[in-house]
Amino acid sequence: MKRIGLVSAAVLAVTSVGGVLHYTGSVPTAVFALTGAALGGLAWIIGIATESVGMRFGPAATGVLQSTLGNLPELFIVLFSLSAGEIVVAQTSILGSLFANALLVLGLAIVAGARAADGDVMRFRRRLPNDTATLLLLALFAIALLGLSDRLGDRASRHQVAISVVGAVCLLAVYAAWLWSYLRSDSPVEPSHEVPTHTELPFTAALLALATAGVAAAFVSDWFVAAIDPAVKALGISKAFTGIVIVAIAGNAVENVVGITLAAKGQADLAVSVVKNSVAQIACFLFPALVLLSLFFSDRLTFVLNPVYIGALAVTALAVWQITGDGEAYAYEGWALVALYVILATVTFYE
Amino acid sequence: MKRIGLVSAAVLAVTSVGGVLHYTGSVPTAVFALTGAALGGLAWIIGIATESVGMRFGPAATGVLQSTLGNLPELFIVLFSLSAGEIVVAQTSILGSLFANALLVLGLAIVAGARAADGDVMRFRRRLPNDTATLLLLALFAIALLGLSDRLGDRASRHQVAISVVGAVCLLAVYAAWLWSYLRSDSPVEPSHEVPTHTELPFTAALLALATAGVAAAFVSDWFVAAIDPAVKALGISKAFTGIVIVAIAGNAVENVVGITLAAKGQADLAVSVVKNSVAQIACFLFPALVLLSLFFSDRLTFVLNPVYIGALAVTALAVWQITGDGEAYAYEGWALVALYVILATVTFYE
Amino acid sequence: MKRIGLVSAAVLAVTSVGGVLHYTGSVPTAVFALTGAALGGLAWIIGIATESVGMRFGPAATGVLQSTLGNLPELFIVLFSLSAGEIVVAQTSILGSLFANALLVLGLAIVAGARAADGDVMRFRRRLPNDTATLLLLALFAIALLGLSDRLGDRASRHQVAISVVGAVCLLAVYAAWLWSYLRSDSPVEPSHEVPTHTELPFTAALLALATAGVAAAFVSDWFVAAIDPAVKALGISKAFTGIVIVAIAGNAVENVVGITLAAKGQADLAVSVVKNSVAQIACFLFPALVLLSLFFSDRLTFVLNPVYIGALAVTALAVWQITGDGEAYAYEGWALVALYVILATVTFYE
Repeated sequence: MKRIGLVSAAVLAVTSVGGVLHYTGSVPTAVFALTGAALGGLAWIIGIATESVGMRFGPAATGVLQSTLGNLPELFIVLFSLSAGEIVVAQTSILGSLFANALLVLGLAIVAGARAADGDVMRFRRRLPNDTATLLLLALFAIALLGLSDRLGDRASRHQVAISVVGAVCLLAVYAAWLWSYLRSDSPVEPSHEVPTHTELPFTAALLALATAGVAAAFVSDWFVAAIDPAVKALGISKAFTGIVIVAIAGNAVENVVGITLAAKGQADLAVSVVKNSVAQIACFLFPALVLLSLFFSDRLTFVLNPVYIGALAVTALAVWQITGDGEAYAYEGWALVALYVILATVTFYE
Repeated sequence: MKRIGLVSAAVLAVTSVGGVLHYTGSVPTAVFALTGAALGGLAWIIGIATESVGMRFGPAATGVLQSTLGNLPELFIVLFSLSAGEIVVAQTSILGSLFANALLVLGLAIVAGARAADGDVMRFRRRLPNDTATLLLLALFAIALLGLSDRLGDRASRHQVAISVVGAVCLLAVYAAWLWSYLRSDSPVEPSHEVPTHTELPFTAALLALATAGVAAAFVSDWFVAAIDPAVKALGISKAFTGIVIVAIAGNAVENVVGITLAAKGQADLAVSVVKNSVAQIACFLFPALVLLSLFFSDRLTFVLNPVYIGALAVTALAVWQITGDGEAYAYEGWALVALYVILATVTFYE
Repeated sequence: MKRIGLVSAAVLAVTSVGGVLHYTGSVPTAVFALTGAALGGLAWIIGIATESVGMRFGPAATGVLQSTLGNLPELFIVLFSLSAGEIVVAQTSILGSLFANALLVLGLAIVAGARAADGDVMRFRRRLPNDTATLLLLALFAIALLGLSDRLGDRASRHQVAISVVGAVCLLAVYAAWLWSYLRSDSPVEPSHEVPTHTELPFTAALLALATAGVAAAFVSDWFVAAIDPAVKALGISKAFTGIVIVAIAGNAVENVVGITLAAKGQADLAVSVVKNSVAQIACFLFPALVLLSLFFSDRLTFVLNPVYIGALAVTALAVWQITGDGEAYAYEGWALVALYVILATVTFYE
């Protein structure tokens, strides 16, 4: 409780300074850094509040809440990027969250988990990793087909929005079918939430925190997106790097650091559940939902990505499936996932 | 028996009308629709007749018979397409049969099977799905290498026919080695055929039906292929869509609807066997055999495909392996396969 | 022992003739053939000597020794190719060793092993195949990202050396972490070396053989590389074929023929260990180490490969994982791997 208060105060301070600098229009790099940090803090608060609210309604509701609210900062950044016409930032922010969770956070969780486990092997249930692999392959299919058609410049490449919409509806339908089967499965795949992943907040406090942090996240995302253009010029980094690394870690990965902590405590199943659910949500809920939402914007978000990210997504899906599909992971396999993220970050740094 | 008689009469009627319209040269769209429907019916009759003939010689012979005769309508369409110079139709017809079986029929069989099973999980033996994955990866290797070389326009791209022939011989040799090992395996992987998949016909009637339906399929395929060009112009659909969706469902998937029925009855192993055998046959028997046969035509069939289909084939191979390789499938996984087919059909619709 | 002496004498004779022809500058095709054969013999001697030296220090040291010395001929050829500016030969030699081991040698070992086993199924421990799959996917990630970026010609494509260096460091770090975990694992994954893979040499003789064969390999590699250019012109084969097939088989596969012999004797685990360790070493130790070493040359070796080889590497990684990941392999699966190598060799023959 005390820690939550302290962090909230710090986030409030950083947010305020970021807001003042934004409205005075000075030092965009500082706005960029401060709002980035504030987003990380807000994402963490929203994570705790969502879970505390969910406690009231049982694990099924928590799952649904997390899938809709947990990615709130992410969602705002993408929406503000779209309305600012920053398609590259919007796309790489979504992809970056996926890569940061599937490679960096999962990798570190495996390293921590393997260290905590007997015999240097982290063991966990096999269903969720395999479900995530299925959902990732589904998203990959839509993305790869559109990407290849786009490279060829064939007739289908002139109907990318229409095909993306059909793909998005398919992905959301399968995600709903999966969530339904996952939440009602007789033998709960996910361990019961008796061991909360975060400190719990009282219900009213949680609701209040959720509302405040949600509104704050909207404002901070707006300021952050506005600062990207001047900041990347001043700092000499690429927009792709901003999305794949900075937004990804601030907007999504920070919240999932809890996965690493859980793994270090030996709670392998819960750790895998937190990280894997995030990955599945981004690929088959957040991305398609944003594709549909973008129909109301002048710049459309489609599944057509830079081929480098399509390749990265394909090998990520395979590596995560290969490493976690058998319900066992060695520390070196965690390092392998981290290495994938480092290589990807290096490539985007030079984009 | 009665149903077979009724269907045969209907197929005969549709075939006759299609033939008359073909020879009077009127309304190609009607010829297209009627002969498409007739092909579905003929494929169904050939399926029943093949199995009934096979009963006489035991399961091994049935397997071989099915692999040679079961794809007869498919084979005729591809051969007539080749002789008419319709390479796109020939290629997409083969690919479409593969996708329709591996995604649409298998997906629906899993949905039906998971519903029929205890605990919402369809369970089946693991060998055949993994064998199919191996064979699909083998075909993918030849196809991907030729496709990449073709895109680069390198020296090897000028020897596509020679490389395709070597690839086809390799694929057929491995398929023969697999069929040999599969049919003589001590513990039969496929459940015994005591539960016939179709109603049985008496031996002589079956032979007669096979001969008649085979000859009819040849004629109907000829009329169908002749009608494609004017029909797709009149209907405004693409030739790729004709091959991937219409030919695929008429020429191959209809016969395999039995897989869905079997799954719904809880016969998971038999259902998987019917569908998976079809997929393996198309990839490693029908496609390479047609590549070799096409050497006698002026237009050659090679393994060089549109990159969109290579990507689709790669992710299909992975998804089918991932979903069925562990011998378990949930309903949502079936829907995921169906979603892949819908996305693919959408892309080809716009090609 | 006797056989080692005979082979050594033969290798010495072939090497001498090759050297004389090289320095007299006559008949490059003969130099090419003789030095190629000599390299195969030297690789075989180095293999035996390394193992005999390793015996003195236990299996851990043998593993490390093999990973550093076992690929010595390979290493020399790549270094001399780099210094002669033959980038294609350098790259395809590394890749060829990987493909020859992962496809040809492993495939034949599975065929031999399945024949030797009860029930026509070769069975082995599952860890090493899965570890190799993880390491191959890691290497594939770096290679695929750089390859795609190169095809796009984007900004990152101008920093291929820097990205390759980061990738190489990542690969080496993960390989070190894997080797550490693999060598100290409580339950030894690799069967004890009580059954030596080769005839054993006394320690001093082994050291002497290692030094002599190592120095000889350096000279022979130099002569071989110098003969490539005139020889491929005279023979009408491509440089890619030289690397993928000739260097691969001479420099690496010959030594691993022992894997096939072991499999035929029913020593499935040891056979898989020999072949799989080679594949992992080439992908995650030899290739990245050479990328770093090439920084001292005027021509740099990077992870940027011809897309045809990237595709081949991707499907090879998948096929090897799919076939061996479950700890079981049928003979037809071995033939499937051999077929992949034949198809690849055919494509490179026409490059």
